Amino acid sequence: MTSKYYMPTRVISGSDCISNSSELFKTLGKTALIVTGAHSAKDNGSEKDVRMALESVGISYLLFDKVKSNPSVACVKEGAEVARQNGVDFIIAIGGGSPMDAGKAIALLATQDIDEAELFSGNYKASALSVACVPTTAGTGSEVTQYSILTNDKAQTKTSIASECLFPAVAFLDPKYMGNLPVGTTVNTTVDAFSHAVEGMLSVRASFVSNTLAAESISQIMECIPELLKAVAAGTHAIDPRCRKTLLQASMLGGMVIAQTGTTAVHAMGYSLTYFKDIDHGRANGLLLAEYLRLVEREQPELSGRILKVMKLSSVNQFRKLMDGLLGVKEAISAEEIRQYSALAIKTKNIANCTFKLKEEDLIRIFEASFAG
Amino acid sequence: MTSKYYMPTRVISGSDCISNSSELFKTLGKTALIVTGAHSAKDNGSEKDVRMALESVGISYLLFDKVKSNPSVACVKEGAEVARQNGVDFIIAIGGGSPMDAGKAIALLATQDIDEAELFSGNYKASALSVACVPTTAGTGSEVTQYSILTNDKAQTKTSIASECLFPAVAFLDPKYMGNLPVGTTVNTTVDAFSHAVEGMLSVRASFVSNTLAAESISQIMECIPELLKAVAAGTHAIDPRCRKTLLQASMLGGMVIAQTGTTAVHAMGYSLTYFKDIDHGRANGLLLAEYLRLVEREQPELSGRILKVMKLSSVNQFRKLMDGLLGVKEAISAEEIRQYSALAIKTKNIANCTFKLKEEDLIRIFEASFAG
Repeated sequence: MTSKYYMPTRVISGSDCISNSSELFKTLGKTALIVTGAHSAKDNGSEKDVRMALESVGISYLLFDKVKSNPSVACVKEGAEVARQNGVDFIIAIGGGSPMDAGKAIALLATQDIDEAELFSGNYKASALSVACVPTTAGTGSEVTQYSILTNDKAQTKTSIASECLFPAVAFLDPKYMGNLPVGTTVNTTVDAFSHAVEGMLSVRASFVSNTLAAESISQIMECIPELLKAVAAGTHAIDPRCRKTLLQASMLGGMVIAQTGTTAVHAMGYSLTYFKDIDHGRANGLLLAEYLRLVEREQPELSGRILKVMKLSSVNQFRKLMDGLLGVKEAISAEEIRQYSALAIKTKNIANCTFKLKEEDLIRIFEASFAG
Repeated sequence: MTSKYYMPTRVISGSDCISNSSELFKTLGKTALIVTGAHSAKDNGSEKDVRMALESVGISYLLFDKVKSNPSVACVKEGAEVARQNGVDFIIAIGGGSPMDAGKAIALLATQDIDEAELFSGNYKASALSVACVPTTAGTGSEVTQYSILTNDKAQTKTSIASECLFPAVAFLDPKYMGNLPVGTTVNTTVDAFSHAVEGMLSVRASFVSNTLAAESISQIMECIPELLKAVAAGTHAIDPRCRKTLLQASMLGGMVIAQTGTTAVHAMGYSLTYFKDIDHGRANGLLLAEYLRLVEREQPELSGRILKVMKLSSVNQFRKLMDGLLGVKEAISAEEIRQYSALAIKTKNIANCTFKLKEEDLIRIFEASFAG
């Protein structure tokens, strides 16, 4: 079988990497649109660092700080309009997955008119403004992927736009912006990154490169889990800065993985939990991951065994306990909801990424087992 | 400290990956120059596969099959002239490190006149034709690096041209072309790849990404060494095809590593062994690697310990024995030669990549110990 690797984003990592590498912005253009949410990039200092770097190299910029969680098509169309009207050359997206995914979609829509149906069906030219990403959570990996995930109201889910033109030109990874993240956000984003790495190993597109990166991502996250469990127990946002750095690296590696492999059933099912029940995206994946791994163990024990070995765990039950410890009390879900979400998930393209054939009943059983106990 | 990762080459791997992905050539242009050596690409079937793929998608091509080992500036100037005169859009380099490095230099020189001194000093525009690479040995990793290493007669060594515009657009990794490689070539190229991965971990530019890739490369090569030792003992070219595949993957990972880290003292010193004594490039590195690691152990035992752990070895002596077993009887070297080579190596930029300050006496001691016993 032919395997493929491609990830052309330049990744700059380390403390103060934005100010240390401000010259890089000059390679992207003369006028930037900063795309972010209303508050966090202001509070954590990342927006200020970007502004100062741009000013130091004489790049003018505008701010579009209207991105909310799970961005809508309306939001990115509005951002694209701002970009177009102001002759913006490139986008700088700052934040978690939502601003970064919005920033990429804005970069695409700024160069061409695409209606909603065509956007989700992939019917557009591979042309977009350049994007620089500054992740301020350690989860999505969007800073190194070709995906922009938007709310798709027609399909009642979140849908991934995928085009190689959406790979960011540059990603700046500085853990200092994550120092004050609430513990719930830290856990949910960590679990998202974890899910990317694990699902990457469970994808039919897994390759020797993606498996190498995924195994490292999983190992790095496993190292940080005791620290996270302590923070959860203490209800504190304070986490060892070395652990913050490790998590940011691991989430970037997870992004490099899914850029090759895509995601699997876990993401397909998790999207419903986010769309209908407003459960955070990372948490939604985390709630389902152990029970999907249990199904893999039944179908392909060698594969699940390899992943458990990387985690240094001896059973899926051990993994389930670990995730339960991180995620705490679970939401209620009805049998009717489970049927509805399973029917939606079985139709998604992520399901085709799984290494064995899944049936709707399999998804129902995963939902049931995940929310039980 | 700021760390960087960038490797924009698309890597396609697997049996028959050239014919399975022939459409990709269309993204590179309409007329290709195939750059290769006189014989091996014809004998191993790779040149034919490339020709057939090009014909299947209607791309015209010319052949430049004059590349010899350790290519000269004259050779690449001649190739560039052919490319220019025939309005070639892109280069397809097939072979080991020499044709791939020559192909990249031809891609550069086809777009601009650069005299020899400027070529080696980096004084040129970052503009080159696109390059596709087909490695037919598992060693150089050139298919995923920005380097072209040419013989530099003025400096009496091999010198690396480095420019991001030299990253190949595509690399095709098909182990079937390596089935008939002589055992000596297999060993020397494996040792070259091994050296890239180890030197990557010993570079001041090592990062979490490069270390991840390097550790995997080292592990994969270590898995194949028993098979290589068997082939050396039996004097046969026949090697388990799974091992061929693993070695090709490992050498590509090694290339991804040195694209980030560069090489260190080992390559700096090895270039003299190749330039003056005509010792194969990979073998030259292999002869020196263990004794450089011994010096690292004295200066930074934590670092050498980490590498030995990845190798699953307990001492530098064990590693030295392993390399001695692979490399067999060593060439003679005089005290005068050692002094000359050390004086040249200490001035190279690779030395600045080492994680501690090296003195000329250190290099002398490494040469002496490497060729003793």
